Amino acid sequence: MLRMSTLFLRTLREDPADAEVPSHRLLVRGGYIRRAAPGGFTWLPLGWIVYRKVEAIVREEMDRAGFQEVHFPAMLPREPYEATGRWTEYGPNLFRLKDRRDNDMLLAPTHEEMFTLLVKDLYSSYKDLPLSIYQIQTKYRDEARPRAGLLRGREFVMKDSYSFDIDADGLQASYDRHRDAYIATFDRLGIDYEIVSAMSGAMGGSASEEFLAPIEVGEDTFVRCTAGDYAANTEAVEVAAPEAQPTDGLPDAVVADTPDTPTIATLVDLLNGRDDLRREDRDWTAADTLKNVVMMLEHPDGTREPLAVGVPGDRDVDLKRVEAQLAPAVPSPFTEADFAAHPSLVKGYIGPEVLGEESASGIRFLVDPRIVDGTRWVTGANEPGRHVVGLVAGRDFTADGTIEAAEVHEGDPCPRCGSPMEIARGVEIGHIFQLGTKYAEALDLTVLDENGKTRTVTMGSYGIGVSRAVAVLAEANHDDDGLVWPRAVAPADVHVVVAGKKNGPQGPAAETLATELEAAGLEVLLDDRVGVSPGVKFNDAELLGVPTILVVGRGLDSGVVEVKDRRTGEREDVALDVVVDRLVEVCAAG
Amino acid sequence: MLRMSTLFLRTLREDPADAEVPSHRLLVRGGYIRRAAPGGFTWLPLGWIVYRKVEAIVREEMDRAGFQEVHFPAMLPREPYEATGRWTEYGPNLFRLKDRRDNDMLLAPTHEEMFTLLVKDLYSSYKDLPLSIYQIQTKYRDEARPRAGLLRGREFVMKDSYSFDIDADGLQASYDRHRDAYIATFDRLGIDYEIVSAMSGAMGGSASEEFLAPIEVGEDTFVRCTAGDYAANTEAVEVAAPEAQPTDGLPDAVVADTPDTPTIATLVDLLNGRDDLRREDRDWTAADTLKNVVMMLEHPDGTREPLAVGVPGDRDVDLKRVEAQLAPAVPSPFTEADFAAHPSLVKGYIGPEVLGEESASGIRFLVDPRIVDGTRWVTGANEPGRHVVGLVAGRDFTADGTIEAAEVHEGDPCPRCGSPMEIARGVEIGHIFQLGTKYAEALDLTVLDENGKTRTVTMGSYGIGVSRAVAVLAEANHDDDGLVWPRAVAPADVHVVVAGKKNGPQGPAAETLATELEAAGLEVLLDDRVGVSPGVKFNDAELLGVPTILVVGRGLDSGVVEVKDRRTGEREDVALDVVVDRLVEVCAAG
Repeated sequence: MLRMSTLFLRTLREDPADAEVPSHRLLVRGGYIRRAAPGGFTWLPLGWIVYRKVEAIVREEMDRAGFQEVHFPAMLPREPYEATGRWTEYGPNLFRLKDRRDNDMLLAPTHEEMFTLLVKDLYSSYKDLPLSIYQIQTKYRDEARPRAGLLRGREFVMKDSYSFDIDADGLQASYDRHRDAYIATFDRLGIDYEIVSAMSGAMGGSASEEFLAPIEVGEDTFVRCTAGDYAANTEAVEVAAPEAQPTDGLPDAVVADTPDTPTIATLVDLLNGRDDLRREDRDWTAADTLKNVVMMLEHPDGTREPLAVGVPGDRDVDLKRVEAQLAPAVPSPFTEADFAAHPSLVKGYIGPEVLGEESASGIRFLVDPRIVDGTRWVTGANEPGRHVVGLVAGRDFTADGTIEAAEVHEGDPCPRCGSPMEIARGVEIGHIFQLGTKYAEALDLTVLDENGKTRTVTMGSYGIGVSRAVAVLAEANHDDDGLVWPRAVAPADVHVVVAGKKNGPQGPAAETLATELEAAGLEVLLDDRVGVSPGVKFNDAELLGVPTILVVGRGLDSGVVEVKDRRTGEREDVALDVVVDRLVEVCAAG
Repeated sequence: MLRMSTLFLRTLREDPADAEVPSHRLLVRGGYIRRAAPGGFTWLPLGWIVYRKVEAIVREEMDRAGFQEVHFPAMLPREPYEATGRWTEYGPNLFRLKDRRDNDMLLAPTHEEMFTLLVKDLYSSYKDLPLSIYQIQTKYRDEARPRAGLLRGREFVMKDSYSFDIDADGLQASYDRHRDAYIATFDRLGIDYEIVSAMSGAMGGSASEEFLAPIEVGEDTFVRCTAGDYAANTEAVEVAAPEAQPTDGLPDAVVADTPDTPTIATLVDLLNGRDDLRREDRDWTAADTLKNVVMMLEHPDGTREPLAVGVPGDRDVDLKRVEAQLAPAVPSPFTEADFAAHPSLVKGYIGPEVLGEESASGIRFLVDPRIVDGTRWVTGANEPGRHVVGLVAGRDFTADGTIEAAEVHEGDPCPRCGSPMEIARGVEIGHIFQLGTKYAEALDLTVLDENGKTRTVTMGSYGIGVSRAVAVLAEANHDDDGLVWPRAVAPADVHVVVAGKKNGPQGPAAETLATELEAAGLEVLLDDRVGVSPGVKFNDAELLGVPTILVVGRGLDSGVVEVKDRRTGEREDVALDVVVDRLVEVCAAG
């Protein structure tokens, strides 16, 4: 039994100054966690109980799926991460250190390399596969902006699994098993989620999906089709590209003076108002303009490469999308100095003529997938104050490739069904990757197949943010008064509040009830503090968020106690002699 | 049910090249652990099961004692450790790193500072005390020589507890509760141990005891009184010092040429053979010579200080004992250059006259506690080839203080009862410290007492090596064929071996039995591998060390299976229809 009189706990009336989001605020105020370092939190006793319940559910579901648990060190040598390139690719996000012998070590952000080497160490035959192994382990990432408490820390607990298969079909099967196990896990935890297509980022590999908890304070933005056909992280959204059209018979492009057109709207107005520039079939719109944005890519080895991205002018370039597509390279805006170094680029009037690897500038030129052959564009004429009108893709210019770089807008058509899509925010609670052979190749993980031939193993990697899940649960389950834990992870089933005078009958009665509740299999938090007013106790009970509150108060004289549902606020008076049965019933109902 | 056919496991026939001790060798060969980094090990599935059982027992005993579990980050900011001096004192044993903002961070070797700050953050009154809180958490120490597998790693799991009390009596009570909880824990784990007086080292504080598992490959040496009155880590042994005697009437010291006495034995022979130097009451012995050893102390701030230590000439100076007494300063032998810098020191003939803070050399001079006033010594005369004979402590020389620095010998008298002591080796599995106010003072942890006065909190700190305990259990429980786990921590209760021809009746019979055993509450490891010979399976069963082995083999035709006790090797044939009951009985017996 947990007793408030001895529990290592102090609730706070005031919000902590550094807490930006409700979960952080309430977990600190409720004495669940305390900040110990930038992006590092200490679990206090109640928080640790909740954490361990979450961890236990994750573990049970992994075990149930037949995955086997192992446990790696967090501090690892450089070499395996050097072999896959991630020692460099992770950039400043990786915590690096040296040991007393000057060896380079790292604090692992994820363990693909080590799992690959372990399987290489133990296994050698196709008969050993498939294999899925996992760990629940502390991870380190030197986030630029640790924030929101447990939602984005620098030291956190992940469940990371890895699958090993002989071929792509096997990988697909392992991936599906993990996907199912994740669904089971999050359902049991009572976490709402959306499964969205995602980018693989620094992980490499071919396909990946994220489990996003739709939470307003989330850092991830995703879109979902209002008809339910599609959901994707904004970074991974695929544009519904039109079909290419023949370029024959389209009018020639015209270069025109376009004075006083500081914005795309004024440019479009000017064009539609001039007979010589007006489009014959319909008015020009902002979506017909081609905006060419130059940026600088920094590669992990430190080299810098200019890149031009062309998008329809009704949208900006989304640098996060560019970054996701081109990882591990990192894009940044072109500076004045960069422009000075590329005199062929006329700022504000850059047209395709000066772009592309074959062009005068030699700058790689990637365009939005909507820019297909036969589409007609208004774009810069590479001279100040002039635009070219009716430039035809595939006839007048050809890009070096396409890129999903344009901003996604609410209402954009679903690439599957064309229905409008909506934009929402979420927190990543799980991520599943089909890695393919990237790590196995880099570290030479092969097995012999049934014909005695050497085959490179195909891998998947799968993560759940275990400590983050606690914050997500808090974020999704609170009201103005405090936390409202789902029963599966609550620090107790019943919070028993003694609300009577000192030395009154309420104290002993509550002790008896608490003992009976425990004997009936319920977990009890007993507020047995003496010299603390009922009001303070009630406030603490609301703040702590145990799902059922049992008040032993004045009603005791007439043989009743009060049962309150923390979530709904519903109260009922229950006779003392049936309250244990009633509470067993309430708790079993969830 | 664990199945060998799918278990992520490969047993090895050969000893790993880097394994120095049996536990390391067998844990690797049995597929329990694998090396992942210098001093860093990966737990494979079977090892992780054993580890988690050990951890669960530790946790249950801490909870039973009323200690509350919390959990801190491993990566911590420098400042708190700077405030207590340990940032520097830990020297090269501390893993230090910088984050992306160039802040100094460390990987905590132990958490006194953080627990102190946490309690300071939450508590303010004597009413809040006593408090004992703990964590089971990964620790980091950059050991100079990581060795012996899990016995001395650089990344390992500790259970560390901290107690907080208003006064020394409270501390003593908290210390005793932890001591009792440790006894209960190690008893349940089935680990043999000796509780020995210990030094506090870098922890600071007044009193401490170690729980040492008496294991031959242990790095700690301890002595125990053969009458059972005393046990102490060698570093902490107290010498049974004689009582001081009056110096009146003792003969004057004599300086003598002592040619050709390269050793203490030859010197003693010379003295006893010369009428003018012979001792009147008895012969001189090696124990009457005073050996003055100079060394260089390096302090954490980098400063170096010469130190002279005088010990009876029948013993050497034990640098580990010196180091333990003078921590955090680290002693090293005097070099030729050091001698050159101190010309008053005549190597091989150093006498007390040139030693001491008041002497010509100014070198601090500490002596063994046996060198009490009124004892008479033969020692160097500060000239080559000459000794002084009959120098009286307290009359002819006075040291700056005493130090426990002399080697401990088998048979030395117990400081309590005088019985001879014996020397043994062991591994530290627990350590309990009365810290006192060192950390509370450095970090200003105070509470108000019942009179409203500010009082500095008194602390204790208590550790159990959780991952190390697995190695200790393996070290204490093995034979030539493999591991022999105590049932409390074994990866399974029963190892069922299918020993029959492919497609024979043994396979299905074993499956049925295994299922029935599980239904009866036993944990089963089923060797259901096909195409593996019974001999290999038997060898693996011996190596893995599950306490009970059930062989489903040829006897099945006549309705019997074989139950084997892994530890004793005893076998019995048991009829199929009673074997489940028999095994439940066996497992319940332990």
